[in-house]
Amino acid sequence: MTGFVSFVSSGPGDPELLTLKAVNRLQSADAVLFDDLSSGPILGHARDGADLVGVGKRAGRASPKQDHVSQLLVDYAITGQKVVRLKSGDAGVFGRLEEEIVALRAAGIDYEIIPGVTAASAAAAAAGIPLTRRLTARRVQYVTGHDVTGELPEGLNMAALADPGATTVVYMGKRTFAGLVNRLIEAGLPAETPALLAEAVSTPDQRLARHTIAELAEYLTNSAGTTPALILYGALASPDA
Amino acid sequence: MTGFVSFVSSGPGDPELLTLKAVNRLQSADAVLFDDLSSGPILGHARDGADLVGVGKRAGRASPKQDHVSQLLVDYAITGQKVVRLKSGDAGVFGRLEEEIVALRAAGIDYEIIPGVTAASAAAAAAGIPLTRRLTARRVQYVTGHDVTGELPEGLNMAALADPGATTVVYMGKRTFAGLVNRLIEAGLPAETPALLAEAVSTPDQRLARHTIAELAEYLTNSAGTTPALILYGALASPDA
Repeated sequence: MTGFVSFVSSGPGDPELLTLKAVNRLQSADAVLFDDLSSGPILGHARDGADLVGVGKRAGRASPKQDHVSQLLVDYAITGQKVVRLKSGDAGVFGRLEEEIVALRAAGIDYEIIPGVTAASAAAAAAGIPLTRRLTARRVQYVTGHDVTGELPEGLNMAALADPGATTVVYMGKRTFAGLVNRLIEAGLPAETPALLAEAVSTPDQRLARHTIAELAEYLTNSAGTTPALILYGALASPDA
Repeated sequence: MTGFVSFVSSGPGDPELLTLKAVNRLQSADAVLFDDLSSGPILGHARDGADLVGVGKRAGRASPKQDHVSQLLVDYAITGQKVVRLKSGDAGVFGRLEEEIVALRAAGIDYEIIPGVTAASAAAAAAGIPLTRRLTARRVQYVTGHDVTGELPEGLNMAALADPGATTVVYMGKRTFAGLVNRLIEAGLPAETPALLAEAVSTPDQRLARHTIAELAEYLTNSAGTTPALILYGALASPDA
């Protein structure tokens, strides 16, 4: 008797941006494996007596290695439990979902993915803008600002990223943004391309600030801080868009 | 006394993929302007007595022009009503949000955007795959398969679209996919690149089919049909990914 794992997207932070299906899965779970303490009010949907297991980063504590998390997920499911693996944003977007799916498949455990609201959608919504626009922003792309070592990933497609006809959203990119902007400008994207810095999106601490990409690169060089953030750049990030 | 407009994302189709915030806004709306009849169960969240106004495509009826929809939205809000403008998927992704925002701004009417689950997230979730993966799929991009005339948009960034290191999702692209694939292969993307056709995502009629891009182009040339669909291509679309 093997269990079942629901990868549940918990959205960008605001507990009200959880889907009805996510609430349903939380309510019927025997165990919930979650990433960080920001899941507080969201975990309130779990039933009394469910195991709530933190597997993510916490202040003052090293975060468990990814293979340890995958093993823990298998260990819970293999005893026949209904397990929810809570992932922030949309689980499929920069959620390290792949590694955990591979572990479940190897152990013969079935799973489902409940999609959710990714932070890019919430950031644009908070700024009152769409992510796409007819004629001038017909492509939207999401990239991550760092690889496993924390540096700008290698092999970036600069023709894609320096396209003035796209809206680009950089996840987890504050620390490397200045380096990216150097390369964007080299590749021909104007230094005055509008950019939106969106920190702690959809939470009470949300902060939105509009810049050009060049201004934002300079600002972040001096004061990136550690608040989770997205950077959106392209024509739609302009206040006059 | 002017009203207020909430652009509410209704998700990909499954009523359970509505967010709690979307349900809340539907419950307190005086009027709900919605796009099509597929909104049926979702509209059930509106209170008794709310005006439910269909403004989208219906079988056997021409769809209202976009500027007519924008005017209708202004007309409802200007009387002081709380108006919900329901948009499928995430309102910010290929939702023609821009035009309606411009009309509201011109009329001095405040608005908010409630983000939601876009169809790409739901399609990948239904196929059991993520949209991104470390090292091999570090960029995900959404494009539309047709412009206002129904043809493949001009000025496509082929370096972006033919990138084997990205996951690409084509919205509304069944009819033009064969033409796109010709250009992708010309630009160097292998004909055997995996592709996923996802029709009527997250509804009881959902159909998923895996192909290569070349096979899918041939298949759609013969039988595109009219079911709403997404096409996802890239390494992650493979059944062995």
